[in-house]
Amino acid sequence: MISHPAFTVEPWCLRATDLDVDVLAQTESVFALSNGHIGWRGNLDEGEPHGLPGTYLCGVHELRPLPYAEPRYGSPESGQTVINVTNGKLIRLLIDDEPLDIRYGELLQHERALDFQAGVLHRRAEWSSPSGHTVRITSTRLVSFVQRSIAAVCYEVEPVDGPLRVVVQSELVANEQLPAASDDPRAATVLQSPLAAREHHALGARAGLVHSTRHSSLSVAAVMDHAVDGPPGTDVEAESFPDLGRVTVTAALRPGRPLRLVKFVAYGWSGSRSLSALRAQADAALAQARQTGWQGLLSEQRNYLDRFWTDADVQLDGDAEMQQAVRFGLFHLLQAGARNEGRAIPAKGLTGPGYDGHSFWDSEAFVLPVLTRLAPDAAAHALRWRHSTLPMATARARQLGLRGAAFPWRTIHGEECSAYWPAGTAAFHINADIADAVIRYVNVTGDTMFERSVGLELLVETARLWASLGHHDGAGRFRIDGVTGPDEYSAVADNNVYTNLMAQQNLLAACAAAERHPDRARELGVDTEELARWRDAASAMFVPYNEKLGVHEQSEHFTGHDTWDFAATGPEQYPLLLHFPYFDLYRKQVVKQADLVLAMHRRGDAFTAEQKARNFAYYEAITIRDSSLSACTQAVIAAEVGHMNLAYDYLAEASLMDLDDLEHNTRDGLHMAALAGSWIALIAGIAGMRDQAGRLSLAPRLPARLSRLAFTLSARQRRLSVEVTTKAAAYTLKDGEPLEFFHHGQAVTAVAGSPLICTIPAAPTLTAPLQPTGREPAHRSNVPPTSAT
Amino acid sequence: MISHPAFTVEPWCLRATDLDVDVLAQTESVFALSNGHIGWRGNLDEGEPHGLPGTYLCGVHELRPLPYAEPRYGSPESGQTVINVTNGKLIRLLIDDEPLDIRYGELLQHERALDFQAGVLHRRAEWSSPSGHTVRITSTRLVSFVQRSIAAVCYEVEPVDGPLRVVVQSELVANEQLPAASDDPRAATVLQSPLAAREHHALGARAGLVHSTRHSSLSVAAVMDHAVDGPPGTDVEAESFPDLGRVTVTAALRPGRPLRLVKFVAYGWSGSRSLSALRAQADAALAQARQTGWQGLLSEQRNYLDRFWTDADVQLDGDAEMQQAVRFGLFHLLQAGARNEGRAIPAKGLTGPGYDGHSFWDSEAFVLPVLTRLAPDAAAHALRWRHSTLPMATARARQLGLRGAAFPWRTIHGEECSAYWPAGTAAFHINADIADAVIRYVNVTGDTMFERSVGLELLVETARLWASLGHHDGAGRFRIDGVTGPDEYSAVADNNVYTNLMAQQNLLAACAAAERHPDRARELGVDTEELARWRDAASAMFVPYNEKLGVHEQSEHFTGHDTWDFAATGPEQYPLLLHFPYFDLYRKQVVKQADLVLAMHRRGDAFTAEQKARNFAYYEAITIRDSSLSACTQAVIAAEVGHMNLAYDYLAEASLMDLDDLEHNTRDGLHMAALAGSWIALIAGIAGMRDQAGRLSLAPRLPARLSRLAFTLSARQRRLSVEVTTKAAAYTLKDGEPLEFFHHGQAVTAVAGSPLICTIPAAPTLTAPLQPTGREPAHRSNVPPTSAT
Repeated sequence: MISHPAFTVEPWCLRATDLDVDVLAQTESVFALSNGHIGWRGNLDEGEPHGLPGTYLCGVHELRPLPYAEPRYGSPESGQTVINVTNGKLIRLLIDDEPLDIRYGELLQHERALDFQAGVLHRRAEWSSPSGHTVRITSTRLVSFVQRSIAAVCYEVEPVDGPLRVVVQSELVANEQLPAASDDPRAATVLQSPLAAREHHALGARAGLVHSTRHSSLSVAAVMDHAVDGPPGTDVEAESFPDLGRVTVTAALRPGRPLRLVKFVAYGWSGSRSLSALRAQADAALAQARQTGWQGLLSEQRNYLDRFWTDADVQLDGDAEMQQAVRFGLFHLLQAGARNEGRAIPAKGLTGPGYDGHSFWDSEAFVLPVLTRLAPDAAAHALRWRHSTLPMATARARQLGLRGAAFPWRTIHGEECSAYWPAGTAAFHINADIADAVIRYVNVTGDTMFERSVGLELLVETARLWASLGHHDGAGRFRIDGVTGPDEYSAVADNNVYTNLMAQQNLLAACAAAERHPDRARELGVDTEELARWRDAASAMFVPYNEKLGVHEQSEHFTGHDTWDFAATGPEQYPLLLHFPYFDLYRKQVVKQADLVLAMHRRGDAFTAEQKARNFAYYEAITIRDSSLSACTQAVIAAEVGHMNLAYDYLAEASLMDLDDLEHNTRDGLHMAALAGSWIALIAGIAGMRDQAGRLSLAPRLPARLSRLAFTLSARQRRLSVEVTTKAAAYTLKDGEPLEFFHHGQAVTAVAGSPLICTIPAAPTLTAPLQPTGREPAHRSNVPPTSAT
Repeated sequence: MISHPAFTVEPWCLRATDLDVDVLAQTESVFALSNGHIGWRGNLDEGEPHGLPGTYLCGVHELRPLPYAEPRYGSPESGQTVINVTNGKLIRLLIDDEPLDIRYGELLQHERALDFQAGVLHRRAEWSSPSGHTVRITSTRLVSFVQRSIAAVCYEVEPVDGPLRVVVQSELVANEQLPAASDDPRAATVLQSPLAAREHHALGARAGLVHSTRHSSLSVAAVMDHAVDGPPGTDVEAESFPDLGRVTVTAALRPGRPLRLVKFVAYGWSGSRSLSALRAQADAALAQARQTGWQGLLSEQRNYLDRFWTDADVQLDGDAEMQQAVRFGLFHLLQAGARNEGRAIPAKGLTGPGYDGHSFWDSEAFVLPVLTRLAPDAAAHALRWRHSTLPMATARARQLGLRGAAFPWRTIHGEECSAYWPAGTAAFHINADIADAVIRYVNVTGDTMFERSVGLELLVETARLWASLGHHDGAGRFRIDGVTGPDEYSAVADNNVYTNLMAQQNLLAACAAAERHPDRARELGVDTEELARWRDAASAMFVPYNEKLGVHEQSEHFTGHDTWDFAATGPEQYPLLLHFPYFDLYRKQVVKQADLVLAMHRRGDAFTAEQKARNFAYYEAITIRDSSLSACTQAVIAAEVGHMNLAYDYLAEASLMDLDDLEHNTRDGLHMAALAGSWIALIAGIAGMRDQAGRLSLAPRLPARLSRLAFTLSARQRRLSVEVTTKAAAYTLKDGEPLEFFHHGQAVTAVAGSPLICTIPAAPTLTAPLQPTGREPAHRSNVPPTSAT
């Protein structure tokens, strides 16, 4: 955990006013910049010290053989691993022959600040060299949301106490040395020197490198140019080597006359274009950025973010730290998804190499529900990427003996990369999660062209999967046996409620979409027989329920299993997966992450209120949140059942996952799904928003800690402004036709421009559910309110 | 399959009268010689051509890292692989500068014969070199049952058509080149050059090599000496190199005056003794063998086998091929278990490197039931080896969070080497199989010293495992969840009937043994509380039964799963594990090998006759015998239910597993469990022998193909001669107090020396059960009887 007072609490900025080398890697993740296409970790300008150097291009990966001590049919043979591409962030500084390295000399002042509105990372430092010269440096870094291939740095250095000769080396470095890999299975495979040099060039203040990966045959071009503003006599020189491009600026400075360098970096990559085409593409992007200029880039960036925040912002009164955390999360979600057109959104975005840069169900199940409301184009691109991988998913289904499409549990390019099938391929629910994301996107945006061209085929192929994966038993029930649900501490079980209910929705949605686009459905080979089979499977879907306990079973027979001995499990034994064999976890009632509880969120219509309350209490007692995906869902259902303060505690856990490094692995990148979960916990939890099967509803109720919650909800192609206070909710339709929805179960209609005030019913009095010993969330709800600075 | 007429049918010999290079590897396995300590595959004397060169010392293995693409807690990090040690079989021949290689020149005659009574492998060949010189060679090879470290070859070469100069090179070769590994997961990891040279020496007609393994730190000494009988002028020279010891004999021969060479080879290995002690040990063994001489070794060997066959032989009238196959199997079982004192019996014996030379549950569950009756000392040694690995098994249990001992699914040295836990570590039934072997050994031999010193602790530590592995559910039933039973096409299921019933027996046997040895039990920490817990768990053991279908469930809920689509599965898709993912196999009703049916054999007391008939029919329809372990058990229950001809078909499949290469992998070594299954199918199947809980019973009934079955049954420390004909069984007690037992359910008593004739009740008329399409056993029962040549 980042336990030092790392970050000041500010509404629109994340600021660190010291520099602790021990937690450098964590701060590199939280200060990462990205536009979804390029990712720059928050490494220091001068490169060292570093926690984990990181420069990523979405989709650029290397292949590696997946080893098996006992090979099996159907096991993926090749894995994909995100690689650290050419580092364009580097600006090294020499002061009278001494390199700036904050580990030596004296660091008089150091501040980094990530500005959520400007979309830049600021840095200010004052440093005395070991020989006693003091300089002030400032740098501002951005990865452009508008110019997708462009990142830039404005770097200034000024002597504080007398004239000084400085040398600034602005570099492109390929094949940086990386720290050794950790044993944690959630970390990344480290590939040393993954790039083979193909071309390099230097001219004026420009330099460029072109490399290729050895096995995945991808080429990467990185080029840079500079605008230098220094005192007379300032020299600029460029040189290049296979793994190094360098522009060297030499200047004699005096106090009050800084050297200012704007570095423009353009990236391009491709698996198909020639090296010369690729270099030309990067050079063109660079020319455009150069013409736009630093101020132009800054102002484009702010405009882009202004548009985003207009409807995306969520305001919380009463907890300034949470206000900051929620905006931090939304900013990073935007960074993860904004411009990765045609590519997956990785679990860590482009903030680190964790999970090998793979994309999981997290993307559709947690990240897209947020992007669909706040940045729908990004959601559409992510689903188009899934659609583009259909040939691989249908081939995988064939390999598994199934019809339709079997999307990979983890991948970068589209092929299954999971080497442990019980927790990988068997988690077929990802296919229903993709369908769910399609349904939601079309529902929110009304984008029927998308449905016709992309959505329908995704729904059809996933429905086909379910139809072939399940079977009718003797009692006529449609069973889906031997699959793994969301909870990764159970596996290969029968009739996982989440999976079955999501498959049911998938089958019915495929029928409905096929009926809306009958000609297109026919082209996909769908006939009335197939539709009947889907409807039949959906209506006969088996949902196991333990009558005696009065609770649903996470999977069939789950409640008969032994309970984990929580009392005998010490705090140092969490996460359990690092201290106990899966054998033992799978056979006992211990839940890593919301599973049945997630089913109650996604398919709330399939449960009565009483069932929700009983189920929540039952699973709350055995859920340990060894996954960052869990807290937000627990927040949602805690709120629905009526435990508002508990919901707030879980909301806080999701929001602070990376700021407080709760999983101890923020060094490898941010937990995008948890950051998304922060929004989900607020909007679906505290505000009780549901939007399913044509019924939009809200049931807001504030926890003790908050005095106000305000946000804009995008729904039914309209925007509804929602402001919740303790006693009432004010709904204001911003545009469009009147909008019908439910407020705490009462049908209401909002009309554009005319606020609708609805009172909030009194909260029920409930007994708080119990969590496993030692796994209670941190109590935040009952801390006195604070306000933003 | 070896489909050419490879072997002549003879009662006491396996003879191949041709040499087909394409199936050389298979014949090297069936012609392998071993005493359980040393294994020599039936490679040709001259080394090449070869299928798979193989020389093994029981227990000599190398370590290799077990790779995991996604590491997990509790996964074994190091694997163990049997290695091909120094080859002492080699005798190369040069005729006028042309090496004898049967691929060149002309092979006029070639015959190999494995003599089950003499315990030797004979070879005769007549060969014309490419330049037209013809020689006759004969060799006889043995691996001594009496002198455990000794193998020997008597080699003769004689010119046929005129005088000839010959050079014979008798060699020791370490680090032979091996063919590349296959992709079949059942084959072995190939370690090239596993031996590091430590010493070599040569003197007179002797030479020796000492090597060490690199990671497992085992040292291997191989030394040889020769008795040479040639015409005057015959020269003998010895030389040595790091990986080669060679004795060269040069002679000028004429027809009628052969060169005769007896080669004595001694092996020693150790993980603890010094190189000089090891070499001295091998030299001493060699001196003793040299003194015994070739004729002495032959006569010791025959005496040893005469003693074995006196009570071990099983006579079948009516099917000469099966008579041969049964004796072939018993001979190889003896070879696998005779002298591997202190070491495991590998699944392939020492006939090949298949399954990496690992020992599995096969040993206790199939091989030991036979050895316990026919070579009880070998069975005791095998169980003593298990006992010696208790420290590793208890450590493994601790790592898994369990009490007692968790024996490895696959191992050479004692550590778990299974890298795929659902089909490895989760198959906890191996612990009950070990206990079952202990119970049987004590029951048959009355060896109370063994029970006290070895058996009790094995029973106690395995009982402790079960007590901690299971739990009582709300209904008071003792459940064992999330384990894998014998059928490897299901895994990680709840309440596997076989496992639960075997665990029940294990728990009760531990109680009974602890009561027989109370002082020893106290030393092991057993108190009355623990005994009560074991009894309680045993009496509450849950055995799932589907009331509606009227059959037991292999594992709880098994019968609700979808059935495999056998009609859509082509013959080329078997074995399924090479063509379908485990994911699909696990979730459907398809049985690789007898599981519930095995439970009905081992725990027949837990099923009614009606249940047995219904269960057998149910599981017969979904059992495909992709495992060589299955047919014998199906034979046993088929016979009990009354399908004698079907039982005979399965018996034939087990018996011919390797002679007909039914699994297409005899090249990697013989299937010891299937060979043992041949005896089990005869004695427990055709003769209906059961010996459980103090009740010895027989229910013999001949299938149509047989006219007589005769064998000696060792039971209750006495020997009962059994002779079955169509209408009656004759029982003759060979020694000891009168023996009570049951004949077809009737209590009878045999008195020494006085034959007891019991009529065999008429067979019931039954409908034959159905097997999956294309997976019926070959019909042998209705082929007309043949008699031995």
